[in-house]
Amino acid sequence: MSAARAWTLSLEDRATLIKAAIEAKETTYSPYSKFPVGAALLTTDGKIIKGANVENASYGGTICAERTALVKAVTEGSRSFVALAVTSNVNAAISPCGICRQVIREFCVLDMPILLVPGDYPKQPDDPEAKKPGMTEGGVLETTLDVLLPHSFGPEHLELPRN
Amino acid sequence: MSAARAWTLSLEDRATLIKAAIEAKETTYSPYSKFPVGAALLTTDGKIIKGANVENASYGGTICAERTALVKAVTEGSRSFVALAVTSNVNAAISPCGICRQVIREFCVLDMPILLVPGDYPKQPDDPEAKKPGMTEGGVLETTLDVLLPHSFGPEHLELPRN
Amino acid sequence: MSAARAWTLSLEDRATLIKAAIEAKETTYSPYSKFPVGAALLTTDGKIIKGANVENASYGGTICAERTALVKAVTEGSRSFVALAVTSNVNAAISPCGICRQVIREFCVLDMPILLVPGDYPKQPDDPEAKKPGMTEGGVLETTLDVLLPHSFGPEHLELPRN
Amino acid sequence: MSAARAWTLSLEDRATLIKAAIEAKETTYSPYSKFPVGAALLTTDGKIIKGANVENASYGGTICAERTALVKAVTEGSRSFVALAVTSNVNAAISPCGICRQVIREFCVLDMPILLVPGDYPKQPDDPEAKKPGMTEGGVLETTLDVLLPHSFGPEHLELPRN
Ligand SMILES: [Zn+2]
Ligand SMILES: [Zn+2]
Ligand SMILES: [Zn+2]
Ligand SMILES: [Zn+2]
Repeated sequence: MSAARAWTLSLEDRATLIKAAIEAKETTYSPYSKFPVGAALLTTDGKIIKGANVENASYGGTICAERTALVKAVTEGSRSFVALAVTSNVNAAISPCGICRQVIREFCVLDMPILLVPGDYPKQPDDPEAKKPGMTEGGVLETTLDVLLPHSFGPEHLELPRN
Repeated sequence: MSAARAWTLSLEDRATLIKAAIEAKETTYSPYSKFPVGAALLTTDGKIIKGANVENASYGGTICAERTALVKAVTEGSRSFVALAVTSNVNAAISPCGICRQVIREFCVLDMPILLVPGDYPKQPDDPEAKKPGMTEGGVLETTLDVLLPHSFGPEHLELPRN
Repeated sequence: MSAARAWTLSLEDRATLIKAAIEAKETTYSPYSKFPVGAALLTTDGKIIKGANVENASYGGTICAERTALVKAVTEGSRSFVALAVTSNVNAAISPCGICRQVIREFCVLDMPILLVPGDYPKQPDDPEAKKPGMTEGGVLETTLDVLLPHSFGPEHLELPRN
Repeated sequence: MSAARAWTLSLEDRATLIKAAIEAKETTYSPYSKFPVGAALLTTDGKIIKGANVENASYGGTICAERTALVKAVTEGSRSFVALAVTSNVNAAISPCGICRQVIREFCVLDMPILLVPGDYPKQPDDPEAKKPGMTEGGVLETTLDVLLPHSFGPEHLELPRN
């Protein structure tokens, strides 16, 4: 994991990634929460990898959209990412849960863009939600892992000397 | 979920599925346990979907091979399965953990074959391990979810009337 | 973990344990599933340790009653158990999910009694549910970890030689 | 969950809480990571509730110190907290993983103090680590959930209107 972002997200890739997250949402299995979520990763070699939440009757066995996309990517050979987009059926930016933030932490650079896409993307520029601070085109909140998981615990901490 | 198995596993599909699980194992991310596991699902429409374990510095964020394969399958549109194969680098049948059994329970018929494949597959017929009860060709232990998770808790229990 | 059960459950302890599981259920935090579960462990030094399910808005962060009781016990110095009782508001024996079976596996002997207690305990002897095979006093299904998690994966498997 | 902190942490309570987290660490079951962690919660009715990490051979079944303390507290009747302290055997502030941050989110006000206590607490005032920005007495990093889990996903999001 490097401290500096090596890749930038072009406007075209941004649009493709957002579209993929919205499509991914359709593949959800969320009969318990009835809260479908879609996620899409752009890999540094240009692949788009999609995921959706897959719930479980035990509740604890539930795997979110972001983690589905990540384990899919990793086991298909991609461990280097340009950006992540996440969306739901709520008309506001919905953020990854802490579990997903921790799993993202394992594989992504801290300043990788994370796009939180409202369910009614693209919002019109005069939509009050789209005018909130930090919003980018269409009412997307663009953030990073460093913002979402500060003081994060990661692989390197398991290597630290201990008493 | 139906009570009766609708599909049978041909010898050819069995060989393909075992090979896929062995290949999947190569895609593992298991720096903490150093215990690579591969899994492969055969869907009723003939697709093979592979997964490997993806570990996490938090340990609790770890997702096993079987669950990786399942969330991949579900979010790629497959929710009906013929069989599952699982393998590791141990020269014996290694069984899914309870978490995976619970996630398999959500999607698979109870009598779906689960093939536990030794790391040195195919074992020779005169290998003592291959001669143990229940072993099939190559030292594979063929079992089912019903055997691995009896008295299981599933989606239908959440619908039961409660006091 | 030893293969042989070292302790037996007296009728008095059985009654106390069942009562504790029923009381524990009242401490549930289950706003999402609305499925309260209570669990109680009897330790070999005679303590009763109670747990209930504690759910989470992420669903995946949910911790069941059995695991709550176990982590409580372990961090209070008890790692040796005589029996476990589990109950819910459903008028039938409800079984631990696979995640809990796996966590029980870490600490309990395979033949430790696990009592699945119906929500309307004690059932009358002429209740059809109480007459089902395997039922004991009051409509309790008495089972063991060995029955619930056969071919289990446990700590010793991580020690096996690997290719 | 209220937006404003209702309780302050006295110096005496701070010392008691830190001591409890350090003691709690001794009750760890962490044979896989060999990374003991202790946590302690102070409830608004003055109770101290301790937890340590309890690992599992499946890795995914692992429950951290913070979550152990929380499920213990909740099922013992405490759902309102003044502060949380966390410590490990590393001589620096180690932060909760994302999973724990999410579970803390379910029960704690966003500005509740979270004390990250170095393994060699109390550090001397001239220790370089203790002089870092944000450090308080003894080399403790005092933070809050709001800092650790910004833009958090919580119970109220599950209630939002959806498309
Ligand atoms: Zn999540
Ligand atoms: Zn597993
Ligand atoms: Zn459970
Ligand atoms: Zn944690």
